[in-house]
Amino acid sequence: MPSTYPSFRCSVPWLILFLEAVFIVLFYFLFSDVYAFFSYPDLQDVSHMLIFGFGFFLTFLKRYSFSSIGFNLLIVILGVQCSILMDNASVFLTGRTVEGSLNSITKAAMSMVAVVISIGAVLGKINPMQLIVMTVVEIIVFCMSRWINVHILEVSYRVSMMHVHLFGAYFGLAVSSRFSEPPPRAEKNASTPKSDLLSMLGTLSLWVFWPSFNSVLPPQKNEAIFNTCLALAVSAVTAFAVSGLTTKDGKFRMTHIHSAALAGGVAIGYAADRIKYPWIAMILGLLASTISILGSFCLQSCLNPRLKIHDASGVHFTFGLPSVLGALAQVVLSVMEIQTKSPSIGYEVVLIIGAFCFTISAALVTGLITGEHDKHVSVRSSTFSIGARALSSYCSCYCVRARVFLTWHPVGFMAAAVVLKLLIR
Amino acid sequence: MPSTYPSFRCSVPWLILFLEAVFIVLFYFLFSDVYAFFSYPDLQDVSHMLIFGFGFFLTFLKRYSFSSIGFNLLIVILGVQCSILMDNASVFLTGRTVEGSLNSITKAAMSMVAVVISIGAVLGKINPMQLIVMTVVEIIVFCMSRWINVHILEVSYRVSMMHVHLFGAYFGLAVSSRFSEPPPRAEKNASTPKSDLLSMLGTLSLWVFWPSFNSVLPPQKNEAIFNTCLALAVSAVTAFAVSGLTTKDGKFRMTHIHSAALAGGVAIGYAADRIKYPWIAMILGLLASTISILGSFCLQSCLNPRLKIHDASGVHFTFGLPSVLGALAQVVLSVMEIQTKSPSIGYEVVLIIGAFCFTISAALVTGLITGEHDKHVSVRSSTFSIGARALSSYCSCYCVRARVFLTWHPVGFMAAAVVLKLLIR
Amino acid sequence: MPSTYPSFRCSVPWLILFLEAVFIVLFYFLFSDVYAFFSYPDLQDVSHMLIFGFGFFLTFLKRYSFSSIGFNLLIVILGVQCSILMDNASVFLTGRTVEGSLNSITKAAMSMVAVVISIGAVLGKINPMQLIVMTVVEIIVFCMSRWINVHILEVSYRVSMMHVHLFGAYFGLAVSSRFSEPPPRAEKNASTPKSDLLSMLGTLSLWVFWPSFNSVLPPQKNEAIFNTCLALAVSAVTAFAVSGLTTKDGKFRMTHIHSAALAGGVAIGYAADRIKYPWIAMILGLLASTISILGSFCLQSCLNPRLKIHDASGVHFTFGLPSVLGALAQVVLSVMEIQTKSPSIGYEVVLIIGAFCFTISAALVTGLITGEHDKHVSVRSSTFSIGARALSSYCSCYCVRARVFLTWHPVGFMAAAVVLKLLIR
Repeated sequence: MPSTYPSFRCSVPWLILFLEAVFIVLFYFLFSDVYAFFSYPDLQDVSHMLIFGFGFFLTFLKRYSFSSIGFNLLIVILGVQCSILMDNASVFLTGRTVEGSLNSITKAAMSMVAVVISIGAVLGKINPMQLIVMTVVEIIVFCMSRWINVHILEVSYRVSMMHVHLFGAYFGLAVSSRFSEPPPRAEKNASTPKSDLLSMLGTLSLWVFWPSFNSVLPPQKNEAIFNTCLALAVSAVTAFAVSGLTTKDGKFRMTHIHSAALAGGVAIGYAADRIKYPWIAMILGLLASTISILGSFCLQSCLNPRLKIHDASGVHFTFGLPSVLGALAQVVLSVMEIQTKSPSIGYEVVLIIGAFCFTISAALVTGLITGEHDKHVSVRSSTFSIGARALSSYCSCYCVRARVFLTWHPVGFMAAAVVLKLLIR
Repeated sequence: MPSTYPSFRCSVPWLILFLEAVFIVLFYFLFSDVYAFFSYPDLQDVSHMLIFGFGFFLTFLKRYSFSSIGFNLLIVILGVQCSILMDNASVFLTGRTVEGSLNSITKAAMSMVAVVISIGAVLGKINPMQLIVMTVVEIIVFCMSRWINVHILEVSYRVSMMHVHLFGAYFGLAVSSRFSEPPPRAEKNASTPKSDLLSMLGTLSLWVFWPSFNSVLPPQKNEAIFNTCLALAVSAVTAFAVSGLTTKDGKFRMTHIHSAALAGGVAIGYAADRIKYPWIAMILGLLASTISILGSFCLQSCLNPRLKIHDASGVHFTFGLPSVLGALAQVVLSVMEIQTKSPSIGYEVVLIIGAFCFTISAALVTGLITGEHDKHVSVRSSTFSIGARALSSYCSCYCVRARVFLTWHPVGFMAAAVVLKLLIR
Repeated sequence: MPSTYPSFRCSVPWLILFLEAVFIVLFYFLFSDVYAFFSYPDLQDVSHMLIFGFGFFLTFLKRYSFSSIGFNLLIVILGVQCSILMDNASVFLTGRTVEGSLNSITKAAMSMVAVVISIGAVLGKINPMQLIVMTVVEIIVFCMSRWINVHILEVSYRVSMMHVHLFGAYFGLAVSSRFSEPPPRAEKNASTPKSDLLSMLGTLSLWVFWPSFNSVLPPQKNEAIFNTCLALAVSAVTAFAVSGLTTKDGKFRMTHIHSAALAGGVAIGYAADRIKYPWIAMILGLLASTISILGSFCLQSCLNPRLKIHDASGVHFTFGLPSVLGALAQVVLSVMEIQTKSPSIGYEVVLIIGAFCFTISAALVTGLITGEHDKHVSVRSSTFSIGARALSSYCSCYCVRARVFLTWHPVGFMAAAVVLKLLIR
């Protein structure tokens, strides 16, 4: 759509200004006073991850190389403000007092990881306007899904936050599936050795800061850091080894290390502070890394072409599969703990599985609707009517399609069943 | 001056060695013992800002691309040692004990921000020799101006330190105005996309560490961090939006974001820990960013060509204008606080305005003299007589020109009046 | 050996997997439980130094530019796991309880600095297989040498850890001396301006984090940080000055600054927390930097060609000579302290000298044997027999050569004498 692109482009600044004005007004009403009790280093580490780590991580396309760092900054800032407001709105609903402010920035920054992962799946296919709309929708849906996880399914806040990788990966894939795959040799979709190297720098940055991310919320910080360090170490070593084994000439492929080095950190996220023995963390890292590389072969050759999904930076096997493994490991660990302590049999396990299914289905359903809506968003609409039209088209999309997807999509169906069962009990 | 440049160049190492020897001797006399009570992370964050943030920030010229990181390192190290000595000399004068050592390094590093900002205005026009002389003069003048601010004008230490952006920007502009503008297409003055991108990386680095800088001195660290984060976020968002609106094709210009993303952090520096409501910080960030971008249009098209100022990296609208806005905001906030608490009417406000005027005029006057001196510094002088000649030419410059500038320059005149009035009372 | 290289290459992944499996099994037996009491920021700073600082430091060769960051990551992770196991094995031997886990990761990461320095000497000459073997051997020997230093020669744990630069540099040189020098204009050995600049970035990174490294172990952290900061500052200033003086056109050479900027930090490592006056630290930084640059001229023109050592990144004058100076300074400071306090005369000084001689001779002897072994390692050996053959060739190497080197090498001889004397008393 080259002819309509400029007019489209001109409305982006107005959209940004409109969002910012809304945020300032809401901040005026929601925050009565500033007070805080939280660790600044945690916030610093998470913001380094978001701005440098994921910023460089997204530079893998030649065309977007450095400008994706700029867009990443814009998206992160808008999303963090939106997430702070959502968190405080949910606090408002439950009637508790507004929590410390550095605390809320840190939690908002952690939630933003979902959006940044999703962008990895759709980069090169959607324009800035669609990117900003996707950000706002995704962060609102993710905050709601966390609220439901914590207050209805009664999983811990820490676990609900660790669903961030799962949600981000499958939301991004669902949005991506609604856009046509770009032609294989298109300039938009090409990567150069230099952009690959910059992207590797981002992975390295994420790798170094991952223990901080996993230890922000657990009270036993040291255990979480130690286990995450070991899982990441084994994961990176396995990435090198498996990469050397699967290539013909025995050389290490950068894309393998790019995707598999972080798998251990993602997989151990759910249970980082509950693992008692270092070797369990190491085995988990080894499995995550292996699944990630083998998954990349299977998905790219079998599944993706059939489902017509084009996963630009491979978020499915970088974040999606390892977090599914992590959720599984969490269930196994919980079952083993229950066997020793034997409380009310299996109730916790059902809740954990329910939260997992609910999160993945929420991500897929809302992702598909967002993708559908983004694809059909009116290109010639004037700047002022865009808010109202976007809202109405959204609502109609949701009403028509929600039923279709909930009945068609087996995971969504199962999740709905679990949620209903739990609500009825 | 290509013929005399090599002989000039050869005296640079001797100047560096001479300065270093003086520093060691002075450290021998001034420091009796090492003891400390200060936070190491604060020092780390400020040194990251200086060495990586401003180092990359200054890589915008093609010719100086990476070597400016090296020069930046040299300048920062020399300046920090000089600043530690000045601080301890001032402590010596007031008869108190020498303060903790990590503390003094951190404060010295914060003072160096003034010098690094000034270098941004003159880069590409002065040689290493002049750069080192400028550094030593500027840091001494800035330490003196801070001493006068704290001990005579009785503003708080924190506010006197936050004048660092103001002083740096206007000192640099004054020095720059004494050098002829380079021809528009000169190789020395050109920038490439790659050097622009490196420079953007520096801005991003500064952006991430700015909350640390604003929270080193205030006792209410958390409030300062929270408000600075919000101001920076709104500032960056506004930079994207205003940049998109002011360009013809609706694309984002990197130079706009380069200059305006930091404006919010600079503007909120004076009052970061005293702002009670987040929306005030957000409004301040929005105003600072808008003023910075609109200022860049006005200054570059109207003011700079008439005053024959060539501002290499735009420090006037990146640091100068936002810090003027910040000082104004501080006055408004103080007036509002006075209305509620009603102590001795307006006395504090007069002191704050006096300190602001004194700092800006000290920067302009000493900057003009330094620029004049640097321009005429003897090129053929032998290495050994350079110290004596530099000293004598300096003294004569000061005596002759001080009167001219003080009567000619209205701001300096006003500041002198305020200072005299305050001394007389 | 281009024909056998691919078959060689294919066994690298198996070697990595084998090592990782051994590590997991040993972790299973050695660690009973996870508990910790250590500072996470210390670990973060040391891991930044290793992964970013030394990673970029090793990018000076055009051919290995970015991939050396990847290999550096692999080596660091393998080595840290190996070092944790060695530390816990030594604790097992002495019968004490296993220490806190973050603590052990941090110490393991500090030990890895030796390996990374050694790699700087041999980069471009050895293949990945040899690199991994060298890593495992070196880390085991270094842990043993530290154990002997602490438990037999009775020097403090802190001093034994600071031998890391000494050990790394001389081990690397000894390994390097067994490989033939590459032809001077070979593509493998060339460096480009871009790779030099990346390497400079690594130096800058190391420079910024060095105070953290020197302050991990001492109880008086603040003194250690303050003195290290001053030594590094003077060292970098002197590097600029001496570089300007020794080049013909008065320009600064990047390689000089690359090697001499860190010299002050290395030299002050042994005594960072015991220096009472800042000027001593500054003088030490000045001497270290001067020795490093002058040493680079002497070594590259006289010593290296005669001894047929090819020191790829100049670790001899970057880390070797400054740490010898540091050990000397430590002896002088101890003698001065003894004069004032006069305890059992000179006993401590003898122990310090003994530990120094023992460490340097252990590095040289084991380095020569490792180099000899690596050179002759069977290229066509099948993957499965490699472990057994490596072990047997190692043992035979040690038995035959140990006597030769111990009698031939004067430093080794002296150290052996000191150790024997101390054991007999």
